[in-house]
Amino acid sequence: MIYLDHAAATPLSDRAKTAMAPYFSDLFFNPSSPYLPANKVREAYESAKDDIARTIGGKGIDLTITSGATESINLAFTAAKGGKVLISAVEHPAVYACAEESSQHEIIQVDPNGRIFIDDLRTKLTPDTTLVSVCLASSELGTLQPISEISALIKAEREARQSSGNKTPIYLHCDASQGFGLLSVKVSRLGVDMLTLNSAKIYGPKGVGALWTGHHVKLKPLILGGGQEQNLRSGTQNVPGVIGFAAAAKFADEHLVSESKRLRTLRDQLRRTLSENPAIKFLGNPKTQLPNFLTLTVDGLDAERLIFKLEQHQIYVATGAACSASKGIKSKTLEAIGLTDSEIAGSLRLTLGKLNTTDNVKQAAKILLHVIAQEQERLSSSSSCTPHPPSSCAPPKEAVAGSTPEGLPNV
Amino acid sequence: MIYLDHAAATPLSDRAKTAMAPYFSDLFFNPSSPYLPANKVREAYESAKDDIARTIGGKGIDLTITSGATESINLAFTAAKGGKVLISAVEHPAVYACAEESSQHEIIQVDPNGRIFIDDLRTKLTPDTTLVSVCLASSELGTLQPISEISALIKAEREARQSSGNKTPIYLHCDASQGFGLLSVKVSRLGVDMLTLNSAKIYGPKGVGALWTGHHVKLKPLILGGGQEQNLRSGTQNVPGVIGFAAAAKFADEHLVSESKRLRTLRDQLRRTLSENPAIKFLGNPKTQLPNFLTLTVDGLDAERLIFKLEQHQIYVATGAACSASKGIKSKTLEAIGLTDSEIAGSLRLTLGKLNTTDNVKQAAKILLHVIAQEQERLSSSSSCTPHPPSSCAPPKEAVAGSTPEGLPNV
Repeated sequence: MIYLDHAAATPLSDRAKTAMAPYFSDLFFNPSSPYLPANKVREAYESAKDDIARTIGGKGIDLTITSGATESINLAFTAAKGGKVLISAVEHPAVYACAEESSQHEIIQVDPNGRIFIDDLRTKLTPDTTLVSVCLASSELGTLQPISEISALIKAEREARQSSGNKTPIYLHCDASQGFGLLSVKVSRLGVDMLTLNSAKIYGPKGVGALWTGHHVKLKPLILGGGQEQNLRSGTQNVPGVIGFAAAAKFADEHLVSESKRLRTLRDQLRRTLSENPAIKFLGNPKTQLPNFLTLTVDGLDAERLIFKLEQHQIYVATGAACSASKGIKSKTLEAIGLTDSEIAGSLRLTLGKLNTTDNVKQAAKILLHVIAQEQERLSSSSSCTPHPPSSCAPPKEAVAGSTPEGLPNV
Repeated sequence: MIYLDHAAATPLSDRAKTAMAPYFSDLFFNPSSPYLPANKVREAYESAKDDIARTIGGKGIDLTITSGATESINLAFTAAKGGKVLISAVEHPAVYACAEESSQHEIIQVDPNGRIFIDDLRTKLTPDTTLVSVCLASSELGTLQPISEISALIKAEREARQSSGNKTPIYLHCDASQGFGLLSVKVSRLGVDMLTLNSAKIYGPKGVGALWTGHHVKLKPLILGGGQEQNLRSGTQNVPGVIGFAAAAKFADEHLVSESKRLRTLRDQLRRTLSENPAIKFLGNPKTQLPNFLTLTVDGLDAERLIFKLEQHQIYVATGAACSASKGIKSKTLEAIGLTDSEIAGSLRLTLGKLNTTDNVKQAAKILLHVIAQEQERLSSSSSCTPHPPSSCAPPKEAVAGSTPEGLPNV
C-alpha cells in the first residue's frame, strides 16, 4: 500500500498507543471521583493538557478538550455572539457551516493559490464584525494563510474600537487542523484569540481535539452538564484519548523540523516527476504551502476514476476534501481559486506523511503518470467516437477493475 | 484494590480492546475517503452501529454517535424547541443543566425511594409540554423509573392533542446511561422517542455515546460541519471508539441475565452484612433498583472522611454522584428524596460490577463496618468534649492516613 492521504487520516503512532494503554485498563478511573487513584488520573489528564498546550506556547488551563476539530470550530463560533463573521474562501466545511448558521457572514476572497487577499479582509472588517476565522492552512491546497498579518489587522481594529468607544469585541480564530504537527504553531506569535487543534491528523487517536482560547474570550458551551473543562464542555473526560493526543503532539513537536524537511523533499521529488506530464497543473505555490501537500488537476479527467484506478495499485489519494467529495458536493475551495468545473472534476490531493518513503513515493509517481496518461489516451480516443453507441467509448467502471497496466511494477 | 464505583467508570474490557486494536493501526482510514480500504472501515463502522442498536431493538441508522451520554442528552434536548420541559427530580446534572437552559421547565417529584410520582407528571403535562426526560435509573440511587407507564401517558397526551388540533409535538427522552448493559432495554417496549446510551459505563471506551431517535423526532444538530451521522453530528467518526462500544454492548447483551443475577446476589450479601449496623440507612427499594446499586447514609458522619479512610484499605466508593460531589454541590437527588443535610453529607454510593467477587465484596463489607463504627465512635467521643481546644476532639485529617485499624485483614 502507498498511502498519500495523510491529510484525511493518520494511523495511531506506537508512542501514542503505548501512552494510552494503561488508561484503558489499570488507570480507568473517572477523573472526577474523590479517591486517590482517580486523583492521579485527573493529574495525568491535566498534565497531558499541559503537554499539548506547551507545543503551541500555551497553558493547559486554556485548552478546552473536545471530540475533534469540528466541535472545536463550533465552540469557537459561539464567541461571535450575533455579530458579523468573516471567513476565508478556503475553509473546512465546519467553518462554512458555522458561518452560514451565524446571523451574518462574508467570505474573504483568495488569490489563485488560495491565499487570502488581506485588502479584502480590510474592506469587510466593519465595526460590527465579532469573529474572523481563517485556517492556518487550507485542507485542500495546503496553502498557508498570513495569520500574523491578519492578527495585526484585528489588533488595530480592536484599538480603533477602544478609542471610538465601540465595545463590540472581535476575535480571531484559526483552524490549525492542517499544519499543526508539521509547522511551529505558537499562539502568541500568531496573535490568535482561539486555535483549533486535532489529534487525528497528527498520529493521535480519533475523536479528540482541543480549542485554545485567550483569557479575554467569552465562549458559550455547546454541551452542558457536570461542568468539566472549566464549565465549557461537560462530559466525563476521554482520558486515554487526551493522553494519546499529548503523546502525539509532543512527538510531532520534537520532530517538526526533520519531518517537515523530509516530507518537503519527498513532495518536491513527486512534483518534479509528475511535471513530466505537461497536462498536470499543480495548485498552490510550494513556497506558501504545507511541506506535505501536492494538489493537482488534469483538466478533463475524472478524478473519481483516477482514484479507482490507483486503488488497483493500492495507491490511495483524495479528490478535493474528503468531507465534500464523498457527498458529491463541489469543492468551495477549488471554485474560489478560479478552477473551472472540469478542472475541479480532475483534481487530486496527495498528502504525504509517516507512511511514505523515498521508494514508495517514487513508485507512486511512476504509477500516477501511467494512470493519468492511460486516462488521457482513453479520453482522446473516446472523443473521436461517434456519439452512438456510447458504451464503446466509455467502458463501464467494472471493466477497469480487472485491467492490469503493462510495464508497471507489481505493487 | 476493591472497586465499588462501577457507576462512575469501568475498565475497558479485553473484548472491546481487541476489537478496537486494528482500527487504530491497519484500518485507520477516514470512513469518508473514497477508496476501498476506507469504504471497508465505513462498513465496519455502520455495522458496529447496527450491533449497538440491535441490543436495544433498534437500527443503526437511527443512532447518532456522540462523544458520550452528556452530549447525547444535550442533543435530545434540542427536540424541545422552546416548549415546556419536564424532568424527574433524580436526573443527571446534564439533564438538569439542559432543562435549566430551556425556556421553561418543571421538576417531577419523586417518592422517598426516588421513583417519580406519575400523578405529578400527569398534572404538570400541559398542552405546551414538548419534552419529558426521565432516566431509566437514577445514577445516585439506582432507582428504576416506570418508563413504560410514562410513555403510555405521553401517548395518550399525543392522541388528545391530535383530536383537539394541537400540533405541538411531545417527545419522551430516557437517559439509559445507568442500567443499559444490565437490564433488557428495548426502545419499542419502553415506548421512548429518544434514548441516551453510554459506552464508558459498560466496559467500552470513554468518549463515545449514542442517541437513539425515532423517525418522527426532529433534532437540531449541536455540531455542524461535514454532515456525518445523517447531518445530525458532524466530525470525522471515532471509528475505534464505536467498534469498542459495539463489542462492549454485544458482550453485555449476551450476559445480561447472568451478570445481573451475580451482581444482585453480591449486592444483597453486602446489604445484609452492613445491616448489622443499625445506624446505616439504605436508600432506594431493592425491588425497583438496579441490581448493582447500594446507596446508604449514616446520619451525622462525613462521607468524604469515610472515603478517605476506605482509600487506606484500597476500597473505592463514591459519595453522591461523582459529578456533583467533586465540586461540593449538594446532591439534588438526595435532597429530592427528603434527606436532611446531615444525611446527605453522610451518604455513600456503592456500585458493583465486573471487578467484584464474592470474596472482595465480603472483605469490603467487613472493612466498611469497621470504618463506619470507628467514625461513629470518634464522633460520639468528640461530642462529649468541651469546645476548647478543638484539636483534641477532631484530629487533623493527615493523622488518619497513618492509622492502621486493628483486627482487619491486611488489604
